[in-house]
Amino acid sequence: MEATEKDILRGGQFLVKETKCEDVFTPEDFSEEQKMMKEAVMEFTDREVIPHKARFEAKDYALTEECMVKAGQLGFLGVAVPEAYGGLGMGFVSTVLTCDYISSGTGSLSTAFGAHTGIGTMPITLYGTEEQKQKYVPKLASGEWFGSYCLTEPSAGSDANSGKTTAELSADGKSYKINGQKMWISNAGFCSLMIVFARIENDKNITGFIIEYDSENPNGITLGEEEHKLGIRASSTRQVFFNDTVVPVENMLAGRGEGFKIAMNALNVGRIKLAAACLDSQRRVTSLGVQYANERKQFKTPISDFGAIKLKIAEMATNTYAGESATYRASKNIEDRIALREAAGNSHQEAELKGVEEYAIECSILKVAVSEDVQNCTDEGIQIFGGMGFSEETPMEAAWRDSRIARIYEGTNEINRMLSVGMLVKKAMKGHIDLLGPAQEVQNELMGIPSFDTPDYSELFSEEKEMIKKLKKTFLMVAGGAVQKFGPDLEEHQQLLMAASDILIEIYMAESTILRTEKNAKRFGEDAQSAQIAMAKLYLYHAVDIIEKRGKESIISFAEGDEQRMMLMGLKRFTKYANYPDIVDLRNEIAEKVKAENKYCF
Amino acid sequence: MEATEKDILRGGQFLVKETKCEDVFTPEDFSEEQKMMKEAVMEFTDREVIPHKARFEAKDYALTEECMVKAGQLGFLGVAVPEAYGGLGMGFVSTVLTCDYISSGTGSLSTAFGAHTGIGTMPITLYGTEEQKQKYVPKLASGEWFGSYCLTEPSAGSDANSGKTTAELSADGKSYKINGQKMWISNAGFCSLMIVFARIENDKNITGFIIEYDSENPNGITLGEEEHKLGIRASSTRQVFFNDTVVPVENMLAGRGEGFKIAMNALNVGRIKLAAACLDSQRRVTSLGVQYANERKQFKTPISDFGAIKLKIAEMATNTYAGESATYRASKNIEDRIALREAAGNSHQEAELKGVEEYAIECSILKVAVSEDVQNCTDEGIQIFGGMGFSEETPMEAAWRDSRIARIYEGTNEINRMLSVGMLVKKAMKGHIDLLGPAQEVQNELMGIPSFDTPDYSELFSEEKEMIKKLKKTFLMVAGGAVQKFGPDLEEHQQLLMAASDILIEIYMAESTILRTEKNAKRFGEDAQSAQIAMAKLYLYHAVDIIEKRGKESIISFAEGDEQRMMLMGLKRFTKYANYPDIVDLRNEIAEKVKAENKYCF
Repeated sequence: MEATEKDILRGGQFLVKETKCEDVFTPEDFSEEQKMMKEAVMEFTDREVIPHKARFEAKDYALTEECMVKAGQLGFLGVAVPEAYGGLGMGFVSTVLTCDYISSGTGSLSTAFGAHTGIGTMPITLYGTEEQKQKYVPKLASGEWFGSYCLTEPSAGSDANSGKTTAELSADGKSYKINGQKMWISNAGFCSLMIVFARIENDKNITGFIIEYDSENPNGITLGEEEHKLGIRASSTRQVFFNDTVVPVENMLAGRGEGFKIAMNALNVGRIKLAAACLDSQRRVTSLGVQYANERKQFKTPISDFGAIKLKIAEMATNTYAGESATYRASKNIEDRIALREAAGNSHQEAELKGVEEYAIECSILKVAVSEDVQNCTDEGIQIFGGMGFSEETPMEAAWRDSRIARIYEGTNEINRMLSVGMLVKKAMKGHIDLLGPAQEVQNELMGIPSFDTPDYSELFSEEKEMIKKLKKTFLMVAGGAVQKFGPDLEEHQQLLMAASDILIEIYMAESTILRTEKNAKRFGEDAQSAQIAMAKLYLYHAVDIIEKRGKESIISFAEGDEQRMMLMGLKRFTKYANYPDIVDLRNEIAEKVKAENKYCF
Repeated sequence: MEATEKDILRGGQFLVKETKCEDVFTPEDFSEEQKMMKEAVMEFTDREVIPHKARFEAKDYALTEECMVKAGQLGFLGVAVPEAYGGLGMGFVSTVLTCDYISSGTGSLSTAFGAHTGIGTMPITLYGTEEQKQKYVPKLASGEWFGSYCLTEPSAGSDANSGKTTAELSADGKSYKINGQKMWISNAGFCSLMIVFARIENDKNITGFIIEYDSENPNGITLGEEEHKLGIRASSTRQVFFNDTVVPVENMLAGRGEGFKIAMNALNVGRIKLAAACLDSQRRVTSLGVQYANERKQFKTPISDFGAIKLKIAEMATNTYAGESATYRASKNIEDRIALREAAGNSHQEAELKGVEEYAIECSILKVAVSEDVQNCTDEGIQIFGGMGFSEETPMEAAWRDSRIARIYEGTNEINRMLSVGMLVKKAMKGHIDLLGPAQEVQNELMGIPSFDTPDYSELFSEEKEMIKKLKKTFLMVAGGAVQKFGPDLEEHQQLLMAASDILIEIYMAESTILRTEKNAKRFGEDAQSAQIAMAKLYLYHAVDIIEKRGKESIISFAEGDEQRMMLMGLKRFTKYANYPDIVDLRNEIAEKVKAENKYCF
């Protein structure tokens, strides 16, 4: 059965529409092709990356480049690239899973891979002319050339559109001269192509250019020294200086002044791929953690038998599982939407562009949630290892350091938090999603008399799914109230946006986790999925907590008197379980499963 | 007016007794002598430590040693040492403040200083014979010799008493032969004295020895290579191997089999000093963060004007302030108790030993709370700096890495969490604190009809102090219920202990913060303390949240049916504000103050 426009949620619509578990894609739905891809990438990581940890940590930039070349030879760089341009032309899910499984060994390769295949290549596949694509994409897909993305400047970070780099048209109208300074440029040390953003005259918005780079013939381009960084030590990160660099006019990307749009859309793709790139690191760290804990004895007992350690193992596994659930759910939504648009006659390019753009909210949500999960996971990994965790001899400390960048690049988590809610509100204003109607319904419900019926919660996840509905009401109540109070000034209330975003994030992550598990329980049986069921319940419990906390803080900050009281009552109602789960039991069940398998096993 | 036994809270008693603000010591109560000491140490740090950051990060172990020698020349190593043994003989508060202000420049010096003056020297001043003290302490106090503490072994970390190092009495009864392997030994690379723990025959408990070390004449002692670590890079950390090392019998510390007790008591002192050693790092990171945020512009605005950044500045400052409040409160309790015992005829040594031991619960609480605060503070510091925060060129990343060890050494935070509650329960069982009576009262209150009076909360902190009382009831309800349910098996329920510990920690930290602020508001006026008042309220708000969350989880895990419902109702009652504070406003007020001063200014 073909998916139709109606079947696929629009971006952000998860908040107001109920999704059936049959309609979510899960890692357990991987096709044979996807499974083969996953195996191939895992084998590559095991062979080429993980054994060389010490070299990556010793800033062996050449090794990173070497791995990239090998990844190119195996086709991994071209997964997302259409066959017409030398790629494998696989779907978006395959793109995401390649990012996922190639990234666990070291953040250095993860960054190089993400920068090249994402923001270094996608701007051309998404916005390039046919000539540009023919000329550059095959080289990028094969790894003959590597790409970098030159957006950030010393004074233009989060405020990317404020860059000072200039592009000046030549007298003959055939080329632009680029002058300026870019910084934090991943892959700068070994790239042959740069996506560069510069301002033409006094344009409001910057413009994108494709600039070739050849160190033998540098065309006014000089590179700074390698930056010495907290983590991703073997990822090449340099400043790039443009001094009268000449770029032919035909190398402009899309139109004049469209650079900011390109930059933002490239980042959307980058964000979901970055989330994926944090997943296998979590799996690996969880596995290494449980293996150490099973092995290490104190007080004559494997430390994995201690509740304090079981707690960690359970939480690490649960967050990993949640991250997988949400990342692959969104990936397939994007893939389906691309297919739909193509079926409707859009070019692949146009379809892909719109497909990803549609889910920009989910991309931001995933970026924030999974980058924070991997930080926590590696942090607990260190703690499980105790003193050994602090030693460079064990893998935890590098994983922890590498994780730290994920909360900063591709838009800081603060920027992405604000974006997620901001984009949603904009979509509602534009009428792309109806938030107003549902928000009004919640308002009415708040005024009405609550039902005191106790529903029948005997079916799997019936209470949890009811809870998800209530959490959505919480968001609508809080965000709706805030919009009503502040109108367009809402964007100045960043603390409120941050809180609302946490609510939004937790809803998406918890719902995705429950739907994945429900789908699998229906297929494979509840007994076979009992640890997963425990994870879904544990995740939701924490989500409810976070939502209650952030909801309360928000309500108090913008509502007063009776309105505040009514909303706080609503919050209490919307976050109340009929039957509270015993999360100590849940954690124990999850931990016992992981301990028995001696690895992350979901 | 002399303090009497009655005036000073016993360790752990804060939980069941109300403390008046006049009875807490605060940093604003520093004596002239203490202020001079603080100034001297700060000047030293500014001159000798902070300018050399790059050398510390480049593993310049010699620099650390050099700083220690200079610290010795200035008397800083002997602050806590009685004048009779060449020290300054200053009180415990001065000891703690020296640790505090010497530690902010680099975790490397902080660790070397803490290891030397704390666990490297204190076992002798606390347990040594007069001869041992005469012989060794003056050398340690002056920095002629440095000390290290050899407890941990490859298979004996948290389970410190399980070490395999042996001590065998010679045939002539004059010496012991030490054989074994110690690891993670701070200061190993430049120490002349080691406090070594080893087992005699099949003793249940280990025994402590003072072993001199001279690399020219190594006496069977060999050192491993320097460990390569995540942080505290210029702190010497090595393995130490003992191969038939001969130690004269007169170098045994205290009695045979008393090593475990020594080890644990040395760690108690170590823990409060470690907490102190995290404070100035938080102050410095907060100051550097706000300075960067005031300077850095994005969207044509200093980023310190954005709510997302203000939130960070406010939370960083608040946690720092809370850490100071609790650390100095406990320090003075210890100092007063030492003085009382001396007044009652105890030797200084005996008095100090008992004084610190009495507050072992508070020492564990502080170790956990402040080590986690400094981690969060440095983490936010990186985030404020954005991409620059990830660079070794800026100070944030080293501070973040250095912080990480504080949650591991001197007993992991997991061990300290469990200890804090475990010790409290033991004290109650022994009748040293009456928890049973107050727990019974809470039980009765739960059964009774709640009062619906709205008290008059117009006086400063009246609602907050009422809340503290209720939070104490929450702990008594939760811990009391758990003890009732599990009895002595409670120690096997680590998840529950961890949750109960979080409740305990938050109560102590929040109460200390409020009392400090109340005391200062009475002295200096509420207007002068308005940001501090906001910090106390903000801290409490978060504490209530944590306590509600951890309380709920605990109750659900051990209570069922009506009992569960009753306790959850109690929890709700005990964590409910009559007037919820608007924490967005509170954060803004705090942040504006810090922004205006352009540094941590409390």
